[in-house]
Amino acid sequence: MPHPPVHSPTILCTVDVVLLTLTADGLQVALLVRDRAPHAGALALPGGFVRPTEDSGTRDAAARMLREKTGLHSPYLEQLATFSGPDRDPRGWSVSVVYYALVPPMAPDDGAPAAVEWHPVDRLPPLPFDHAEIVRQALARVRSKSQYSSLPVHLCGERFTLPQLKLVYEAVLGERVNQVSFRRRMDELGMLEPMVGETVGGAHRPAQVWRVKEAFRGELSLSERVLAGRD
Amino acid sequence: MPHPPVHSPTILCTVDVVLLTLTADGLQVALLVRDRAPHAGALALPGGFVRPTEDSGTRDAAARMLREKTGLHSPYLEQLATFSGPDRDPRGWSVSVVYYALVPPMAPDDGAPAAVEWHPVDRLPPLPFDHAEIVRQALARVRSKSQYSSLPVHLCGERFTLPQLKLVYEAVLGERVNQVSFRRRMDELGMLEPMVGETVGGAHRPAQVWRVKEAFRGELSLSERVLAGRD
Repeated sequence: MPHPPVHSPTILCTVDVVLLTLTADGLQVALLVRDRAPHAGALALPGGFVRPTEDSGTRDAAARMLREKTGLHSPYLEQLATFSGPDRDPRGWSVSVVYYALVPPMAPDDGAPAAVEWHPVDRLPPLPFDHAEIVRQALARVRSKSQYSSLPVHLCGERFTLPQLKLVYEAVLGERVNQVSFRRRMDELGMLEPMVGETVGGAHRPAQVWRVKEAFRGELSLSERVLAGRD
Repeated sequence: MPHPPVHSPTILCTVDVVLLTLTADGLQVALLVRDRAPHAGALALPGGFVRPTEDSGTRDAAARMLREKTGLHSPYLEQLATFSGPDRDPRGWSVSVVYYALVPPMAPDDGAPAAVEWHPVDRLPPLPFDHAEIVRQALARVRSKSQYSSLPVHLCGERFTLPQLKLVYEAVLGERVNQVSFRRRMDELGMLEPMVGETVGGAHRPAQVWRVKEAFRGELSLSERVLAGRD
């Protein structure tokens, strides 16, 4: 027997995604021009209503949003937090379950619809709703988590050298990382494997090429110690 | 001009709270007998519908839930995560924004309504909805966060000695903590102040009594290193 109907108050339930990548110009966040009210025409985070007939949960809704609006399939995706209240959306009392996702830099023909605009996180245009605060909290989470995990590898392409990966960590953390402790930490995290016989660079000091082990591609490896600037 | 009505799909929006305390029998979670369907009569986490006319956000709804259902006012309260999907609540597609709260052990006359039952986290009765999974994730978060923060002080009464606080950390972490590194970490966290002239214990080695500084009572102090078992 189905449960009797519930007279629950109407609350708008949305999902928003902070999609980040890293270029030579630093961390970038994906913004889209809104095609409907409220704030039609403004640049905002990709997001939309949860669809109970389609989505198996808010994570599934966030993955659908990324597929539909940015052309991305299953990047690294994690729940950030839920934002709520009567004033954040002019349509009414709303809850937005926010996820963040990390992807390697994409070439223009990588399938992302032309509507996606990448903006440096430190020079964002004014954003509608509470999206500026959402981006701020996402950056704080990514930086904090990068201190003790393999999170930044999701910003790399499939193959990279350790010096390249170190630059990615430094760009995310916003500070220099000691080379010896970086290599020790990567050893401890244990998520990389060498591409046998593949090196790049000069004949005298070629750099080994690495990739993320299969088991860690959608996952994180956690360290017990923070990485940067403290040893 | 008010925004035109939105035809958004109906999603149940609730808040649940994992309220934890620590007794000689370990970490305890507060459960309440449900007084209505679904699962009437079952023990469950304190929770209920968000009320758009009353609540300024889900955090405010969680604080209201604790006041109304447990008699507690403004304990340490933090968002855990949001749980969602079509099957977790028989009434329909639902979102529950979950918070966790930590309080010192309460005497029976501390104002908690008699309906609150404390259960050891490692011997919970079967719980309805996805409440068992929610408690599991809350414990993982509290243990992880206790490794590098002042979180466990919220389980202490107003005044305590360092040996007492160390026992609280050990009970939360489930492992022994080295005494020297514990005292060093408490120094680094910088959130304690001595009660001048107050000591307890024998005449030969009286223990200083401490309390949490005013500025840290609703907050956390974060360390850059994890605490237990690694130095």
